[in-house]
Amino acid sequence: MKIHHLGIAVESLQAAVPVFARLLGKSPESEEVVEEQKVRVAVFRLGESRLELLEATSEDSPIARFLSKRGQGIHHLTLEVHDLAGTLQKLASDGVRLIDREPRRGAGNKLVAFLHPSSTAGVLIELVEEQ
Amino acid sequence: MKIHHLGIAVESLQAAVPVFARLLGKSPESEEVVEEQKVRVAVFRLGESRLELLEATSEDSPIARFLSKRGQGIHHLTLEVHDLAGTLQKLASDGVRLIDREPRRGAGNKLVAFLHPSSTAGVLIELVEEQ
Repeated sequence: MKIHHLGIAVESLQAAVPVFARLLGKSPESEEVVEEQKVRVAVFRLGESRLELLEATSEDSPIARFLSKRGQGIHHLTLEVHDLAGTLQKLASDGVRLIDREPRRGAGNKLVAFLHPSSTAGVLIELVEEQ
Repeated sequence: MKIHHLGIAVESLQAAVPVFARLLGKSPESEEVVEEQKVRVAVFRLGESRLELLEATSEDSPIARFLSKRGQGIHHLTLEVHDLAGTLQKLASDGVRLIDREPRRGAGNKLVAFLHPSSTAGVLIELVEEQ
């Protein structure tokens, strides 16, 4: 298992991208809109992981709600797993609270699921299936 | 550059360690007190990175203050760099606000420095020098 990415909620990609580009010493490898999450995402590669800067594209985006409650900062942690359906089943039987009981299609058409932060010390954790 | 670790503020290691052990499928590789930070830390290896669960050992610990303000969750992101003094100098000259203007000794006697979250989209970033 490894860290796939960290999702960071930002007010403005235009302001945040240059800061992280300076810090990481490189430009984002991609910038795109993910319609179903109502976000614009800039992705920086970082070793085997990524930092994803997330800007809301609409007021009812989950990122807009997070920003109005908490301000800018780390929004979620995404871990890679090999068998997502099996992992969810095991976690549920261990009593871990799930947001998604079944894998669903996320960004890049990958299978993803979120765990409920009440079970994971306040951290919103997303699992993504990598073959 | 890569992610060295994510620091996660928890109310209780006794409660949080079993949850992360179940999720990650392994026990923490270490658990120790870091006196200068007033925390007890449980470290889980995760690919080339780590998750560090942080419990306050005193009411004036930075983690105790974070918990009382924000509740449990991700506290900081630590990135590995090769030349910390040079990196800090470059960031300062680029206008990035620093908490530590010079490298100092942190956990494991490594050279570390924190950047100010006002410059990094609300994310508390620690840099650690790895040879």
